[in-house]
Formats: sequence, C-alpha cells, structure tokens
Amino acid sequence: MELTSLKDAFIGLDLGGTFLKYALGTADGTIFYKNKIPSNAKKGGAAIFSAMFAAVADLLKQAESSNLKVKAIGCGSPGAVDFDRGKIIGNTPNLRDWADADIRGRLSSRFHLPVWADNDANLMALAECRYGAAKGYRYVIALTLGTGIGGGIFIGDELYRGARFAGSEIGHMSIKYDGIPCNCGGIGCIEAYASAPAMVKSYIEKLSRSDLPIPKTVNTELVFAQAQQGQMEAISVIDETCHYLGAAIGNVVNIFNPEIIVIGGGVADAGDQFIAQIWQQTQKYAMAAALRGVKLVRAQLGNNAGMIGAIALAADYYKLSAAKQQE
Amino acid sequence: MELTSLKDAFIGLDLGGTFLKYALGTADGTIFYKNKIPSNAKKGGAAIFSAMFAAVADLLKQAESSNLKVKAIGCGSPGAVDFDRGKIIGNTPNLRDWADADIRGRLSSRFHLPVWADNDANLMALAECRYGAAKGYRYVIALTLGTGIGGGIFIGDELYRGARFAGSEIGHMSIKYDGIPCNCGGIGCIEAYASAPAMVKSYIEKLSRSDLPIPKTVNTELVFAQAQQGQMEAISVIDETCHYLGAAIGNVVNIFNPEIIVIGGGVADAGDQFIAQIWQQTQKYAMAAALRGVKLVRAQLGNNAGMIGAIALAADYYKLSAAKQQE
Repeated sequence: MELTSLKDAFIGLDLGGTFLKYALGTADGTIFYKNKIPSNAKKGGAAIFSAMFAAVADLLKQAESSNLKVKAIGCGSPGAVDFDRGKIIGNTPNLRDWADADIRGRLSSRFHLPVWADNDANLMALAECRYGAAKGYRYVIALTLGTGIGGGIFIGDELYRGARFAGSEIGHMSIKYDGIPCNCGGIGCIEAYASAPAMVKSYIEKLSRSDLPIPKTVNTELVFAQAQQGQMEAISVIDETCHYLGAAIGNVVNIFNPEIIVIGGGVADAGDQFIAQIWQQTQKYAMAAALRGVKLVRAQLGNNAGMIGAIALAADYYKLSAAKQQE
Repeated sequence: MELTSLKDAFIGLDLGGTFLKYALGTADGTIFYKNKIPSNAKKGGAAIFSAMFAAVADLLKQAESSNLKVKAIGCGSPGAVDFDRGKIIGNTPNLRDWADADIRGRLSSRFHLPVWADNDANLMALAECRYGAAKGYRYVIALTLGTGIGGGIFIGDELYRGARFAGSEIGHMSIKYDGIPCNCGGIGCIEAYASAPAMVKSYIEKLSRSDLPIPKTVNTELVFAQAQQGQMEAISVIDETCHYLGAAIGNVVNIFNPEIIVIGGGVADAGDQFIAQIWQQTQKYAMAAALRGVKLVRAQLGNNAGMIGAIALAADYYKLSAAKQQE
C-alpha cells in the first residue's frame, strides 16, 4: 500500500550560520520551490525561530497554490541534535543562544505538523545517499568542507547517530595530538586545519611572510583562483589542506572501510583536481586492505543537499509513523 | 525451541604472534578446557595450520571424554578477515606466509565441522560485550593494547566489519599527520606511539638520555613497576602513552559517541590508575556533547577474551545456520 499520495509534500529547512535555506518537495526528491533568507544566527534563538516560522509560512502558501498537501517538516541544524526529541543538545558555536533549542516543540505547536530534526551534516549525507553521489551504496561517509567540517555516517540503510545523538563529528577528529587548538575545545581537530577559515588564515600568513599585498576580501575561491594562476603561496595552502584531509580520510577508511566517501560543502566546489589531490594523500595514510575498492567523490547535490536531506528525513519518518498507526 | 542442547560445545581458537590459545566451551560462556601452544607464526602458513590442527584434535579428544559434542569452530586471527569466506585478506605483518590463508577451507575439510573466522580484536570485543565489561551495552568500542593496537566496534547487537571486512582498525588511526612511520605503511598511527614496543623503545631512549643503565629485558611491566617506584623516565613514558591514547580515544568518542570503551590487552593489565590517566587525557580531546555518560573501563576477560569470543562467534553462527535450515 502506498501511504504517501502523489500530492503529499514535505518541508525541508537547512539552518546555517548565515542563511536559512528552505524548500518544498516530495518523497521522490523532487523540489517544487526553494528559497533562502538570513538565518539571524547572530541575533539569537528567538530571531532564528522567527526566520523558521517565516520560511514555513512561505512554503505552506506555496504548497496551497500548487495543490500540494504538506505532511511533515524536516529540519537540519548545526550541532548535536537529539533525534528522538527534535531538540538541540548543548551549545552550537556558530548560532547564538541556540543551546537546547526545541525545534520540534516550537514548529509543531505553531504549524500543527509532525517535525523531525537532525544534524545538518547528517542530512547532507542522507540526501547524497538517497539521490546523489552515494545512491545505492551501503557504507558511506560524507564530509562537508566549509566554515566547519561536518561528518555524516550512513551504514546499512540508516544514519549512524551514536548512543546519545552526538556521534559522527568527523570534523573533530584530531590529526595532531600536539597540534593547534580547535573552537570545540579539542586539540588538532581536522576542522582547525582544513576548514575554510583555516585555509584563509594560512593563506594570509603566507602572503605576509612573502611580503605580498593582502587583498581586502580573502576567501577560499580566491585561494583556488590564485593557485590556478600559479601563485606559490596559494598552491602551498591547497597542498597542505589536501595533506590534512588525506590524513583524516585515511583514518576514516581504516576505521569504517567504507565503499564511498562523499565530499561536499563550499570548499569541495573547487573541483575534481582538488578531490584527486586529497585522494593521493589519503593513500599514504590508509591501509591497503581497507582502501580496496573505496571511492572518493564530490557531492552532487551542492547547496541543496541539506534541504533535500531534510525533506527525505521528514518523508521517511512520516511514512514510518503512518505505517505504525496502521498496525 | 532450543536449538543447542546442553551438551553442545564449540571450539575457540585465538591465533597470536607467539601463542595459539584454544578452548572448549558452550554458548553460555562456560569454558571446560583451555590450553596454549606455540603458534609457529615465524615458521609460516603450513606450520601455523599444523598448530591449529593439533589444537582442534586436542579439543575434540577433550570433548569426547567430557560427553560434549563439538558443533562448530570459531577462530580469531590478526589481520583483516573475510568473514563471509573465513579467509585472511592480504598480509598480516606478524604472521609469516599467512596471506589469504583459508582458515575455513583447511579446518572444515579436515574436521568436517562448520568454521567461522574473524579478526582477533573483533572477537575480544564480542566476548567483552557478551560476557565481560560491556555486557548489556549497545554502543561499544574495544581496544586491545599489546604488541599492536587492535580495535573492535560493536553497534546495536553486532560487530561492525566494514564494507569489505577491513574496518575497525582503530590502531591505525593517525594521531599525528606528520608523525612517525607505522609498520602498516601509514604515518603517525596510534599503534606506532602507544603499543608495547613503542613504550619500550621510548623508555630505552629516555634511559640512554639520562645515562642510566638499560636492563637486559625491558618490557611494559618493567616500565610500570619503575614508574610505581617514582623513576622519572618511566613516569614520563606512561604520561606520554596516556596522552597519545587520550587523543585516539577522544577521536573515537567524537566519531562514535559510544556508551562504553573497553581497554584490554597486556598493557591494560597495568591497572585502574593507568585507565584513569587515559580518561583524563581523553577529556581534553572529546567534545562535551559526545562525552556525556561515556565510560572508559578495563576489559574483564583478560587473556581468555579471544578464545571466548571465538566460541561465541561459532555458537552464534551455528545457531543462525541451524535456524535457517529449519525454515
């Protein structure tokens, strides 16, 4: 029996440090409408919820005019998310006053819809497994390279969330026990070495050391563009970043022996050459038996992955709970 | 229906670099008889199989005189083990000429019994989950500290083996991307820093640097004993080892968010103070959300864990295959 009719739709929210991206879609991965607004991350919890309320209201209006019936809401957020309760666990460094935020409670009481919430990197992984680069694979590790480094672990047919929903923080794996401090409080985390801000910082340092002018706006796009033109400082930043990522991904290979590793997030847009260079470094760290047949690929769903994953999550659990009610 | 009668017994083999340990037991974890003989690891594959044949023959004789009926054989071996086929995958550094060894093929054709084989650290983890320190837990990481550092991952109700049975090599997680080379070919693996030989090497170096005499036999027992007596060089080796292990275990906490981490192997016999010191370091590396409620404990089954795990494996899969034949 098909529990979801063709007209059933789901809302996907992807909360980030800058934008709240949101979309309306169906369980087969089709997106009917998407948009983004400022996430109000720096204004604190109440403002973030206001943005979410506005996004859901927009999508409900869109659904009505498209003859779609919204059945549930899925939401991705940075930080550890208690999946059973739909609540944030503890603090999230890039979202002000977002500690213990009750995503399910606030959204469901306002919109009278079921709500499921999960870590944003988990939902990116889910989207890539369902509709993207890792479709059909059963042992998948997803990494998002951006302001932070997020990790998603997909084993069998589900996301691995850990005993208390705080697992899969691959970005906070130390690749140097006596290395630099990380925002998380740890030491030598791969995020502290290979995130976009880490790349930018390293590039500015190298420019200074070479007595080169420092552009007003430095971002990873600039670093990759300068490297393309042969600038040694930029090339060296990318070489080092690939080295760091190779060590981290080698660890992931030895621990999980996955079939495929998907690299997403803004930095991954740098292209296939970047991925090839990471892979070259990975081979130095991973064991031969664990490396056999493993693929390292770029994510396919780009900036939409978080929203698509949130829609997939909502669709999955809506179906599950509908099936349970039938029993 | 009880598929295994009280008189059904299972053989457990635990192949190591020095000894082949073997035991006869039942599915409830009772051991009726155990023994060990040289594993012939340096003499190569044929000699290793000879030792295994002798062990099984001994156990079959013991079973007969105890009115036990042996139903299946379980075997743990270092290295990656293709669990579906009961064969070694590729090389194992500490066992000569053991590449691709067909454990199931050789044992089952000789003794006409079903055979299951797995990685030795996996079987230690299984034993501790079933009968030891991690009994009743569902998210368990086991580490064995000895000549090498082995890892076992037990999630839900089963061992995690990876896509091609080469996962859970936690000992080959790099904790220093620009660190010392490891026997596995990798760089900065925790095994290269915190295994028994690494501790011994570091201790000898420190003694030399302090112009102290180097004893004829140096092993980790000596290092712990000297530390107990206040010798700075020994204390410093232990401090450093705990620091390395804390970084590695912090990574494990951030990635898996387990309920419990079990430390076994010869080095873990050093005692609870050693475990407490590792835990202190772990807290520096693990994230608060992932660390909540996590326990770090010593293994309970000691040297028997590998054999007990092999018996549990054989009992589990014998029941499963018997149940399948009933269908």
